[in-house]
Amino acid sequence: MSHAATVWSLLSTLRQRRPLVHNITNFVVMNSTANALLCLGASPIMAHAEEEMEELLGIAGSLVLNIGTLSPHWIASMRLAARLAAERGLPTVLDPVGAGASKLRTATTLALANVGKPAVIRGNASEIMALAGAAEATKGVDSAHGSEAAEEAARGLARTYSCVAVASGAVDFVTDGERDLRISGGSALAPLVTGMGCAATAVVGAFLAVADNPMDAALAGMGVMKVASELAADTAAGPGSFEPAFRDALHNLAASDLDDRLMVA
Amino acid sequence: MSHAATVWSLLSTLRQRRPLVHNITNFVVMNSTANALLCLGASPIMAHAEEEMEELLGIAGSLVLNIGTLSPHWIASMRLAARLAAERGLPTVLDPVGAGASKLRTATTLALANVGKPAVIRGNASEIMALAGAAEATKGVDSAHGSEAAEEAARGLARTYSCVAVASGAVDFVTDGERDLRISGGSALAPLVTGMGCAATAVVGAFLAVADNPMDAALAGMGVMKVASELAADTAAGPGSFEPAFRDALHNLAASDLDDRLMVA
Amino acid sequence: MSHAATVWSLLSTLRQRRPLVHNITNFVVMNSTANALLCLGASPIMAHAEEEMEELLGIAGSLVLNIGTLSPHWIASMRLAARLAAERGLPTVLDPVGAGASKLRTATTLALANVGKPAVIRGNASEIMALAGAAEATKGVDSAHGSEAAEEAARGLARTYSCVAVASGAVDFVTDGERDLRISGGSALAPLVTGMGCAATAVVGAFLAVADNPMDAALAGMGVMKVASELAADTAAGPGSFEPAFRDALHNLAASDLDDRLMVA
Repeated sequence: MSHAATVWSLLSTLRQRRPLVHNITNFVVMNSTANALLCLGASPIMAHAEEEMEELLGIAGSLVLNIGTLSPHWIASMRLAARLAAERGLPTVLDPVGAGASKLRTATTLALANVGKPAVIRGNASEIMALAGAAEATKGVDSAHGSEAAEEAARGLARTYSCVAVASGAVDFVTDGERDLRISGGSALAPLVTGMGCAATAVVGAFLAVADNPMDAALAGMGVMKVASELAADTAAGPGSFEPAFRDALHNLAASDLDDRLMVA
Repeated sequence: MSHAATVWSLLSTLRQRRPLVHNITNFVVMNSTANALLCLGASPIMAHAEEEMEELLGIAGSLVLNIGTLSPHWIASMRLAARLAAERGLPTVLDPVGAGASKLRTATTLALANVGKPAVIRGNASEIMALAGAAEATKGVDSAHGSEAAEEAARGLARTYSCVAVASGAVDFVTDGERDLRISGGSALAPLVTGMGCAATAVVGAFLAVADNPMDAALAGMGVMKVASELAADTAAGPGSFEPAFRDALHNLAASDLDDRLMVA
Repeated sequence: MSHAATVWSLLSTLRQRRPLVHNITNFVVMNSTANALLCLGASPIMAHAEEEMEELLGIAGSLVLNIGTLSPHWIASMRLAARLAAERGLPTVLDPVGAGASKLRTATTLALANVGKPAVIRGNASEIMALAGAAEATKGVDSAHGSEAAEEAARGLARTYSCVAVASGAVDFVTDGERDLRISGGSALAPLVTGMGCAATAVVGAFLAVADNPMDAALAGMGVMKVASELAADTAAGPGSFEPAFRDALHNLAASDLDDRLMVA
């Protein structure tokens, strides 16, 4: 099966099943992430109270953890969710926003990875390199590195945590430590819209609820983000009009769009 | 007076008075709710600190409580606001997001209803049924039921809490326990934009500040949401472009739009 | 150098340097503020955990403090950030959202101003007058005053805190207590989009990272907001379509736009 056919098959399944995706994510992107998941065809829930975590995870198809605006209470909530998800075998994706920019972020990510056994970790090149222990100073939450430079770091991270690691960028690098995929395309406007990386993580999370393995989920998630971004850029006049156009494209995405535009090597 | 004339009269009054609507709502929809209220013609304030609650409610025209991303501190804040509003006779609308999906959500909603004597409770069919004690398992924050199935539950809820209950859906069911209204129209794109239900709740809340009775406020609120959604869908290419189009339509809503499109039975 | 040339020079520098702007802001506008900063050409970070504040401020070019949805934990976080920024000489802009509407807001703003020595304080007329001690009752977070009435209050505030004060409105008044600027233009749609004032504050904050003095930063920040708003209004059908058009305009802003439209007296 071609990559485009794999992605289309998973997208069709997702749209039919509408999996409930549980998100504990940051304040900046809660709205845009929920909208991306709805446009994809999933059913998002955003909830962080420890008192209801077990019940809500009991009806969820996957878990998305994102440390973007972390604080002690939210870290406790994410740890609880990570542990419960691991116990239940609920697939989890972890987004280490700003890892490397502070000790708190790096340590929190590694703690969540240890507790939660995530199926996928998705970050930009700086974050993946910081996590992999590459000595470097990151620059806030935007990446200071090309995707290529992070490839070795991603492979190491995938092996250490027995997960799929995604170092996203102009080319998204997806690896399980042995097999690599590189997804290109997309648009230079995407990084100028806040939360597109966080949306990619959540979209991968939605595919985890329907895919047989995390490599396929990561391929499908990063792939539809690239193709929908490219379609949006065709009509956008800037980052402002790009965002609604991206959501429309995600909602309207057809098999022919994947056939025509998905570039995986 | 026709339903359209009632709604237009209330909308005209609201646009002239620009009531201050106090919201304690969830993180996902704070931005979109504030924008819906501004486009309607109201003046939104989002604030949850207990230390300033009494002062702020003193200048508000109505109160909107929404438990979407509840946690212990926010529940305490909502309880205080509910109690103060009840003491002052400030009309309150309550949105039980996800009621039934966790014990915490159901119990918090009922506690707020008991303390706050809400004028209106607005939820989707699953939430209204969960609150009414109908035995059922809800599926996260999206509704698993048609509006019709919840009609009896809504009537019971309205009688128990001496309020107006709204079970929203493809057809919005509005009842005070004796009299029923059914509002149809709208767009299938609306449920694909996060927070449209929360916006409806807040819009009903804004009308509570200018209406003589909660049935009229619920009719006006749910009615303008249906009509603005329908107008937005005429030009939208998907859920992404639907959202700005919806805000434009709400801002530009004219008497003739209500005459032509409001469907109430 | 003309005002337009000053603003263009600063904008060009900002786009080249892409300064990291640290924001502790309110839940309502985190997403829209981050997007405005990205469209301007800056790199936003939103973070409030005290445990990582020193590290993150160490890589930031400026600090934005906004009390919009304040609560005790967030006030503590803002106080820490204000103190650390003052110690490091990191330029800070302070947005006193709703000052005057509650004692908590007025007191918190003045405490932050005392601790943080902000380079700029930007509010609407009501907020600036409340801070300056002008006896008055404000109406929530929207301004009940014209910009003109607040001019004397702004001058007093600027002198008291040795900062630049901006009282924004149909005409933005910018003063260091001695020299005044008045920036006109913009669009009546801007106040109907939540967070445009907060975005203006953050944009001024971004210019603080590259300007030699806070008067120039305030001029550039308020100036680009006015011109981008005016450009957006040329194509917008209402507040909904205004917002993406505004972001596009900010991203695409050219020297000729400033030459043609910037009105400073």
